[in-house]
Amino acid sequence: MKKLWGGRFRKTAEEWVDEFGASIPFDQQLVEEDIEGSIAHVTMLGKCGILPNDDVEIIKAGLLALLEKAKQDQLEFSVAYEDIHLNIEKMLIDEIGHVGGKLHTGRSRNDQVATDMHLYLRKRVTEMMDLMKELQKVLVEKAEQHIETLIPGYTHLQRAQPVSFAHHLLAYFWMLERDYERFAESLKRINKSPLGAGALAGTTFPIDREYAAELLGFDGIYENSIDAVSDRDFIIEFLSNSSMLMMHLSRFCEELILWSSQEFRFVEMDDAFATGSSIMPQKKNPDMAELIRGKVGRVYGNLFGLLTVMKGTPLAYNKDMQEDKEGMFDTVKTVMGSLKIFAGMIETMKVNVAAMEAATKQDFSNATELADYLAAKGVPFREAHEIVGKLVLTCIEKGIFLADLPLEVYQKASPLFEPDIYEALNPYTAVDRRNSAGGTGFAEVRKAVANAKKRLSEKKRYE
Amino acid sequence: MKKLWGGRFRKTAEEWVDEFGASIPFDQQLVEEDIEGSIAHVTMLGKCGILPNDDVEIIKAGLLALLEKAKQDQLEFSVAYEDIHLNIEKMLIDEIGHVGGKLHTGRSRNDQVATDMHLYLRKRVTEMMDLMKELQKVLVEKAEQHIETLIPGYTHLQRAQPVSFAHHLLAYFWMLERDYERFAESLKRINKSPLGAGALAGTTFPIDREYAAELLGFDGIYENSIDAVSDRDFIIEFLSNSSMLMMHLSRFCEELILWSSQEFRFVEMDDAFATGSSIMPQKKNPDMAELIRGKVGRVYGNLFGLLTVMKGTPLAYNKDMQEDKEGMFDTVKTVMGSLKIFAGMIETMKVNVAAMEAATKQDFSNATELADYLAAKGVPFREAHEIVGKLVLTCIEKGIFLADLPLEVYQKASPLFEPDIYEALNPYTAVDRRNSAGGTGFAEVRKAVANAKKRLSEKKRYE
Amino acid sequence: MKKLWGGRFRKTAEEWVDEFGASIPFDQQLVEEDIEGSIAHVTMLGKCGILPNDDVEIIKAGLLALLEKAKQDQLEFSVAYEDIHLNIEKMLIDEIGHVGGKLHTGRSRNDQVATDMHLYLRKRVTEMMDLMKELQKVLVEKAEQHIETLIPGYTHLQRAQPVSFAHHLLAYFWMLERDYERFAESLKRINKSPLGAGALAGTTFPIDREYAAELLGFDGIYENSIDAVSDRDFIIEFLSNSSMLMMHLSRFCEELILWSSQEFRFVEMDDAFATGSSIMPQKKNPDMAELIRGKVGRVYGNLFGLLTVMKGTPLAYNKDMQEDKEGMFDTVKTVMGSLKIFAGMIETMKVNVAAMEAATKQDFSNATELADYLAAKGVPFREAHEIVGKLVLTCIEKGIFLADLPLEVYQKASPLFEPDIYEALNPYTAVDRRNSAGGTGFAEVRKAVANAKKRLSEKKRYE
Amino acid sequence: MKKLWGGRFRKTAEEWVDEFGASIPFDQQLVEEDIEGSIAHVTMLGKCGILPNDDVEIIKAGLLALLEKAKQDQLEFSVAYEDIHLNIEKMLIDEIGHVGGKLHTGRSRNDQVATDMHLYLRKRVTEMMDLMKELQKVLVEKAEQHIETLIPGYTHLQRAQPVSFAHHLLAYFWMLERDYERFAESLKRINKSPLGAGALAGTTFPIDREYAAELLGFDGIYENSIDAVSDRDFIIEFLSNSSMLMMHLSRFCEELILWSSQEFRFVEMDDAFATGSSIMPQKKNPDMAELIRGKVGRVYGNLFGLLTVMKGTPLAYNKDMQEDKEGMFDTVKTVMGSLKIFAGMIETMKVNVAAMEAATKQDFSNATELADYLAAKGVPFREAHEIVGKLVLTCIEKGIFLADLPLEVYQKASPLFEPDIYEALNPYTAVDRRNSAGGTGFAEVRKAVANAKKRLSEKKRYE
Repeated sequence: MKKLWGGRFRKTAEEWVDEFGASIPFDQQLVEEDIEGSIAHVTMLGKCGILPNDDVEIIKAGLLALLEKAKQDQLEFSVAYEDIHLNIEKMLIDEIGHVGGKLHTGRSRNDQVATDMHLYLRKRVTEMMDLMKELQKVLVEKAEQHIETLIPGYTHLQRAQPVSFAHHLLAYFWMLERDYERFAESLKRINKSPLGAGALAGTTFPIDREYAAELLGFDGIYENSIDAVSDRDFIIEFLSNSSMLMMHLSRFCEELILWSSQEFRFVEMDDAFATGSSIMPQKKNPDMAELIRGKVGRVYGNLFGLLTVMKGTPLAYNKDMQEDKEGMFDTVKTVMGSLKIFAGMIETMKVNVAAMEAATKQDFSNATELADYLAAKGVPFREAHEIVGKLVLTCIEKGIFLADLPLEVYQKASPLFEPDIYEALNPYTAVDRRNSAGGTGFAEVRKAVANAKKRLSEKKRYE
Repeated sequence: MKKLWGGRFRKTAEEWVDEFGASIPFDQQLVEEDIEGSIAHVTMLGKCGILPNDDVEIIKAGLLALLEKAKQDQLEFSVAYEDIHLNIEKMLIDEIGHVGGKLHTGRSRNDQVATDMHLYLRKRVTEMMDLMKELQKVLVEKAEQHIETLIPGYTHLQRAQPVSFAHHLLAYFWMLERDYERFAESLKRINKSPLGAGALAGTTFPIDREYAAELLGFDGIYENSIDAVSDRDFIIEFLSNSSMLMMHLSRFCEELILWSSQEFRFVEMDDAFATGSSIMPQKKNPDMAELIRGKVGRVYGNLFGLLTVMKGTPLAYNKDMQEDKEGMFDTVKTVMGSLKIFAGMIETMKVNVAAMEAATKQDFSNATELADYLAAKGVPFREAHEIVGKLVLTCIEKGIFLADLPLEVYQKASPLFEPDIYEALNPYTAVDRRNSAGGTGFAEVRKAVANAKKRLSEKKRYE
Repeated sequence: MKKLWGGRFRKTAEEWVDEFGASIPFDQQLVEEDIEGSIAHVTMLGKCGILPNDDVEIIKAGLLALLEKAKQDQLEFSVAYEDIHLNIEKMLIDEIGHVGGKLHTGRSRNDQVATDMHLYLRKRVTEMMDLMKELQKVLVEKAEQHIETLIPGYTHLQRAQPVSFAHHLLAYFWMLERDYERFAESLKRINKSPLGAGALAGTTFPIDREYAAELLGFDGIYENSIDAVSDRDFIIEFLSNSSMLMMHLSRFCEELILWSSQEFRFVEMDDAFATGSSIMPQKKNPDMAELIRGKVGRVYGNLFGLLTVMKGTPLAYNKDMQEDKEGMFDTVKTVMGSLKIFAGMIETMKVNVAAMEAATKQDFSNATELADYLAAKGVPFREAHEIVGKLVLTCIEKGIFLADLPLEVYQKASPLFEPDIYEALNPYTAVDRRNSAGGTGFAEVRKAVANAKKRLSEKKRYE
Repeated sequence: MKKLWGGRFRKTAEEWVDEFGASIPFDQQLVEEDIEGSIAHVTMLGKCGILPNDDVEIIKAGLLALLEKAKQDQLEFSVAYEDIHLNIEKMLIDEIGHVGGKLHTGRSRNDQVATDMHLYLRKRVTEMMDLMKELQKVLVEKAEQHIETLIPGYTHLQRAQPVSFAHHLLAYFWMLERDYERFAESLKRINKSPLGAGALAGTTFPIDREYAAELLGFDGIYENSIDAVSDRDFIIEFLSNSSMLMMHLSRFCEELILWSSQEFRFVEMDDAFATGSSIMPQKKNPDMAELIRGKVGRVYGNLFGLLTVMKGTPLAYNKDMQEDKEGMFDTVKTVMGSLKIFAGMIETMKVNVAAMEAATKQDFSNATELADYLAAKGVPFREAHEIVGKLVLTCIEKGIFLADLPLEVYQKASPLFEPDIYEALNPYTAVDRRNSAGGTGFAEVRKAVANAKKRLSEKKRYE
């Protein structure tokens, strides 16, 4: 087999080296972007008079025919032609003859592959943002149904203070909002064209980079040709943003798994998102939540993989950088799958309101109310805290809760206690009264739901 | 020793657990931010009528006195009071008596520590951005001196095409520009106030979070109290941005180390940035470049450390999150040090123009010119490439370079070759003619230098 | 200030470069190892006739004096002398005059620092192994008290099958056993001497590397001088083994945190290992367990940091490798602290036997018993599994458990059910009967405790 | 479609959840191990009287038929049956009828999958060790040809001291030797049987775990059933050992890339391991070396991925752990491919002896000789170092080398210099005289080659 770049080589590389080095098994995912990039490139060559219009038309027609086939999954790639670029070029030449060899004028594989990756990520990130928005929507809907549902708020996995379940759900809304924001910002850097940077130095042909960029929908061009072909920041930034998103999902998964346990029983996953056991028929495992929690590992791994690749590599292109692709593809697949599953999982999960609310009553998570009660009457918070600590200890010793303590015990602890403390100890009241901005008070949560909806409705799709 | 939170505890924790758990040995770096946060908090409590003005004035005076001492490094911290918050509160109570215990009204350590970290990072990131700008400036200055200095451009560490040295330096300018952009964007999320989120649920006191946020110079407040105390995204984002920045520096370091070798001799580090050997007196090691290349490791490690900590931790605060600090402090110190050293290193390095230019002549990096020459005359690029490949092979066999081949050999290879090819083979011409946008042609590089200067002059300091 | 290696340098390096590059702020932890290494080295130089005995005696006396001071913490190090090696050499020359300059004959800082690190890690790893053994001992003791204590065994955090609590604890015994094994194996590679490898090539002096190695208690010498000074595998291996150990502890911590929650209430941490809340007096947070779970992050980070440093660095020594130390020191401190705290935490925790056993009764974790019951009577396991699945579903619909179903329902599901099924459903019986090797049956667990004790008693301390 | 574990489930899981959760697309690589494990299991069930011999024979025959088909790649797997275990069981039941359902008696998927992974890794690690040995062999052969070939030894990428090229190559031999050692040690932990641990608690059937383990060639069994199904240490250890191995290769690759540059020209990669450029016909890129250097990234990533997955996951099996496989498969493929390519690359590379030796002459890497010369005559090393430093500086100023300095200049610097110094300055002599143990002296290197050969010949294949 003859290699396209084999002019000065006297030996044919052995098959197994070819296989080890070939990227076509994975970079074929870039097929559409590669052809679209070539169409823009050749159109620009024509416009600038670098290629005669006849050649341009023949080449474009050939590329369009290949694009059509690509969309119908009819192209067959070969390891013999290493990568997606040489495969497509070979098919083009097979299709339209040696004029196809003119396509590569004023371009190198270095700027070509970078262009493909930018186009690919722009498309995927936009789709991922849609999925984030979808999940946010599901969260808001669920929240809206549970504004007055109480659940213990935890710190250190100890019940701390009761909160509105809606409020808890909306914490994830805001994490996703930051994720969305970061992805949106990254599009600025993703949507920049390296096309025309050549191997690294630009080209002597009088090309028009801005025009080609415009044809491809880019917002602008890389300012420096060496940087254009050496840069993989936009992929690392994508992997980093994905890592943070998956980390958020892993935290939510952890909670869903806890809540699905027999000990909590706060939620029940729909059967579609749970599985049974081959040996224990009673099990209903929150499999999807566990799997997504586990999948954070591979996304972190992909991030660190590429950071490692780029560490200490000199300019400009080095073959090491071929290792940028598989981790990116895998991350796209993982994140998109996780977001989809998550939305379905939250939408269909059964919330056990009774169990949640029972949990807010049988503990000491209303102790803060007492401390605040005293502080509001002028007791320095630190002293109030200490008084309440002793009352809790008394309860624990007697096996009762704070609401069960008689008034005289309270008044012995501090003369400032009055009969209205029992009202303060009621978890519903406790939640209702936390109306500081962003707090769990029902009025605040209602505002928060409205605010979240407004945010969603204002989001414009990046095109 | 009595613990502040020890009300209900019957045992004193043993010394070594205290030491293992205490954060004061490192979080004392937050001392100024902690006091400033407290001043804003108590001012707000006064404004909202939650504390009487007299108390507020006494507390503020006490805090200001502590702040003064902190600035003069006169505070002595104790492991017995765990962390910076309790240390400061203890000092305050020692200073002004039990009214100091009122400071903590309507606040928790959870929102307090988050506030401190936001304030701290805002300050450091702003300083780091100044240092990035400084390094960019040094790069532009150096570039301006070397617009017409030729250096081989490399791909695969093989000489590919000659480029302007200024063009190569400016590639790093643009990497830093992206770094700057990412840090600037992150400030949006850093500069948000969690203060008033309480332990996790907000508070029943009628606090004014926006007012406190304004006093502290925040752009806004966290919308959800649970998220406010659970979020460490802003630190991860900082570590991720720092990792990318250090990765860029590691690439530059790799090149500086190569260029300093006896084989390249392109640059010589100033003595201030190089060291000798304990055993080999002739050595002049580019130590600082090596060290910074190595320091990318710890920054990656800090990023991965915090990503690991946050993986799968349920809401809201967990003690695991105390592990967010040391990696952040270490990264601040590492990145700031690296940027400073880098600017000095580039500014003082001696550029060996003669060696660079010699290197552009004794090789085949002008082969692309021949291929472009033919392509411009209508030969499909792929065929031109193959013709040139054979000419290169001929040269290698004869031990000569392309400029040494007689015209008849060229014309035998392709009748399209004419005497003007020898001009095309001259590296100076080759570079000069690459005037595609962002290319290495001298005219383009001159524009790029002007553009870079303009960018720098337009940068406003984030306040 | 004059630099020791400054002979050919015309400029004094600026202070801040010195500070950035100096390792003395952290490598002073190697002071004893550095001096011990030097004593062995000079003793060997004397034995080989390279230095006259008089010089050797003077140098040794000087070093011993410094060692004594080092042990009493009386040495003062200076950034001006970069690292521990030059600091000590300077002190030696100050102490005994210019003969001290002969110590470095036939040695380089490259082999010297490697020697120090090997000596240091040998000592620390040995101590860490003692601490692992200590924790294993505590686990076995706790297990021995709870052989017949039942606890639900979980998969997917769903109750799966009841197990002996001792059996669960011993799972961690075996993880630690593997950790111990890996650390023990690593000592082979740690306890090898690089001393005498020189800068990288060996030396022309007729040194006796084996003799010096023997004096230092090494098991052998590095076979190749370039490898000897370039190798940091032994530290990476240490970090990797530490990562695995910390991962094990993080899993155990996760369980302790779950078990300490109000939902589980299986254990109660002793007050010494828990803390309260600044705002919620009722809280008793399992702080130490959370903190150790979090500390896995920094150890992973240290591992990844050094792997990054070593990626792609050419032979032999490069300044990047100075970055090997801080992560190693931090890991030693973290792992040793975690192991100590863990042993105390387990030893003192209160086990709530009643809560554990209650949990084994109020669920379907005895369903496997039914499936096995049928399978033992010849029903293919898959069919048995399906029959039992339906019975569980019936129970759930009726809100009862398997033991509450009347015999006729069983016999309708399969005529093979007989009255003895109720015995099989008893969790105590269910556990007792799992006497396959390594299973949770009480007899097996008793054997396992004895086996574990035997293992511990057979462990010899590595000297 | 009906799910095997669907007895109690009322809904059919939707297709896309199935796809997201299914492991069959990748765990089908375990097909042979899965069937072999089942054959051993059912044989043991027969021997213990748990299944009648007739059933056992039918099942075994069915499994053997499937194994045959698997080896010929004739099995078709379906996502509908989730994983390799259920796929095979389904095929078995299709083949031999409902008696196939008895195979799963006394076993769970949890111990089954762990068994498969142990068997798989045992096989692969053994093969990888063969490949390491192969590469070591190639290194020794190459070294043997170049014992007296001089090359500059580098520290800080500065020429430090000349060394034998064989000596440099053997440094990698010893790195691989440690890798081999670590993999060999890991086999102890890999080759342990979890089979019979059941879901987590063992089983009530009177199984014989040791017998099944013996049939499968295991060295022993896991001592604790919960640990047996929860443990993924053996995979992490594999990934960690692979990371270190790849790190070694990345260092070697870095050197090969440097040595292939026009600046060094020390080696030339064979055409089979190099590629050309699409735009620059003169390029001969050391692609395979670059690619392998890049591939260290994915292996580090796989390691960190699994460390992340396991962080903080409670016992025993959780679905997260399904994420253990793809990283392992990818690492096996990457490491095996890299080792194979490497051996070929080294074997075929052309060593440019003249260029290497020229490089040892045109620099100051013989300066140490002078310092040692003086030290051997009693000048304290530090002073000798300083004298030589000044001589080097004199040379640099005059643009000459040390051998060019006249004797009187030497004698002015120190009266101890005599005419024999010129001999000492000859690089060949300088190398020849470094005969300290493990040094680069030719006699030592000859011993080292012999020693390396002996090591290789003594290696027994692990069976």
